[in-house]
Amino acid sequence: MSVLQGSVEQLIPRYLEGKDYSAIAVIADKNTRKHCYPKVKELLPRHLLITVQDGEEYKNLDSCTIIWNKLTEAEFDRHALVIDLGGGVIGDMGGFCASTYKRGIDFIQVPTTLLAQVDASVGGKLGIDFQGFKNHIGVFTQPRAVLIDPAFLATLPERELRSGFAEVIKHCLIRDRAMWNRIRRIELEDMPLKELISHSVETKKAVVTEDPTEKGLRKILNFGHTIGHAVETFYLDKDRLLHGEAIAIGMICESYIAYSKGMLSEAELAEIEEYIFSVYGAVRLDPQDFPAIIALTGQDKKNRGNSVRAALLNGIGDCSYDIVLSRQDILKSLKYYCGIL
Amino acid sequence: MSVLQGSVEQLIPRYLEGKDYSAIAVIADKNTRKHCYPKVKELLPRHLLITVQDGEEYKNLDSCTIIWNKLTEAEFDRHALVIDLGGGVIGDMGGFCASTYKRGIDFIQVPTTLLAQVDASVGGKLGIDFQGFKNHIGVFTQPRAVLIDPAFLATLPERELRSGFAEVIKHCLIRDRAMWNRIRRIELEDMPLKELISHSVETKKAVVTEDPTEKGLRKILNFGHTIGHAVETFYLDKDRLLHGEAIAIGMICESYIAYSKGMLSEAELAEIEEYIFSVYGAVRLDPQDFPAIIALTGQDKKNRGNSVRAALLNGIGDCSYDIVLSRQDILKSLKYYCGIL
Repeated sequence: MSVLQGSVEQLIPRYLEGKDYSAIAVIADKNTRKHCYPKVKELLPRHLLITVQDGEEYKNLDSCTIIWNKLTEAEFDRHALVIDLGGGVIGDMGGFCASTYKRGIDFIQVPTTLLAQVDASVGGKLGIDFQGFKNHIGVFTQPRAVLIDPAFLATLPERELRSGFAEVIKHCLIRDRAMWNRIRRIELEDMPLKELISHSVETKKAVVTEDPTEKGLRKILNFGHTIGHAVETFYLDKDRLLHGEAIAIGMICESYIAYSKGMLSEAELAEIEEYIFSVYGAVRLDPQDFPAIIALTGQDKKNRGNSVRAALLNGIGDCSYDIVLSRQDILKSLKYYCGIL
Repeated sequence: MSVLQGSVEQLIPRYLEGKDYSAIAVIADKNTRKHCYPKVKELLPRHLLITVQDGEEYKNLDSCTIIWNKLTEAEFDRHALVIDLGGGVIGDMGGFCASTYKRGIDFIQVPTTLLAQVDASVGGKLGIDFQGFKNHIGVFTQPRAVLIDPAFLATLPERELRSGFAEVIKHCLIRDRAMWNRIRRIELEDMPLKELISHSVETKKAVVTEDPTEKGLRKILNFGHTIGHAVETFYLDKDRLLHGEAIAIGMICESYIAYSKGMLSEAELAEIEEYIFSVYGAVRLDPQDFPAIIALTGQDKKNRGNSVRAALLNGIGDCSYDIVLSRQDILKSLKYYCGIL
């Protein structure tokens, strides 16, 4: 898994050097077509541009059908390359389409959001949503390369940047106490982003290399996501929360559960909670929605049979996985988050 | 890749022994539901039966959506098992659905046709047809096991058996002169099927193990298929040819091309042609259809750019791959097949 950070002006020509692709397609959404594609276009030989609708609600089979159709119409063969230019939706869906087209052609990820740069583009998890379930249909396939250009982040709204930062926080909390101590003393606008991107990528790579298909250790990357995904899915059709905003809620809830199980100290819980609230504020959740959110945790892919399993902190910088959560655990943690416990 | 031959009464319980699946689904079509499922049903703990429409025309995304939906509704988690009970369509599509559901769950192949037993179930090629192109969307994923019970063949119409036999012929032609000499002296109804199934499985396994994702050697398994697939696809909506019937045509055409390129002797071509015509008869092709058939060879997954590449015999029992075919080569071979050259 080759993950490189730099400018696309250097990285893309270097990747293509000596390779003999029969055709190249760039998959973008309307945003990246406007803000990122002009820069990439100049660096490529003749190619096909495929633009898909923007947003998680289009990460589905219909969009895949459009992509597969375009590749077929352009008579792409097995020696072609797909370049995913965008955030997590483009990377997950474009990668899935490439790795199933004619049973798999080469693809590279060029992530353009902080979330995709520090998380989604690394690790080979690909897929689409199905019947309201996130990433329900997909495969594990490593991209040929991940090319990360932090310059793309300049085009990003501040809210998107903040959302992506949740995964940076997560990587510190599960593996690196020292880095956690550093970031929580810096204002968001002063963060050394290039360094933090490298830190996140290295953290994730180390975990994924050890366990590519999530049989064990890789599950720690799911910290904050068991409850966070359920919250995100619940609010998909309503006032939408961005992925990282939902994961921020999940990290507080799951830290509370770890505390209630005696795994995390009260001081550590306070430290986590204080920092995350300071970055993301407190989202108002309606206790009437809790049963539906709890039900959604039942569809997490890391579960086994009827029991919900989560990755919980043993302390800041140390994480365990496969810990069974009861409905009561989850309910109490949501109440705690809302300050009504 | 574990491929076992025997009775399902022995093979299925042996496979399940010591495994702790959270749920099991059997995927069948209407035929195998009626003729094969009753035997399998008794051997399994509580499970879900998913029945899909019978036939290649249903090997598509709509049928996958039905299968994914059934697994989702039954809350199958990642520790579940899918059993594909049927011919090539069920194996290819059921395997594809299993290996993309929640990014991949275990599946085993229980092939019930000769074609699936000697070919489709072995080797991990999975997928569905898309916009009229065969196996256009799919993945390479090995099943946990392939369990072959020749007793299922007793329920098969003679035409289906004859069709599957084309892959046995192919395996002899590409790798085993001695076995070729044996089979062409035996009447079809006297064939030692169990032995030939093992022979085909061993031949295919050896090739696939060396080259699982078809970068090189595996392409020899495509002998007869470059033209055969095009003929099969062309007649899909019309008087349908079974897969093996089309491959029989393809093997004669491609043997003729090998002869015309000086790779195969005239005597060998005569031997191949005589035997295949004796088993399958001569199909009447309409020369008006040749341009369309030739165009369809352009979509073969083994091609590169605009050139059509095929596996051709260097002699009986020896096969090369990646040999470029011109339109003229293909046209002449189709004329030769029809006796109008």
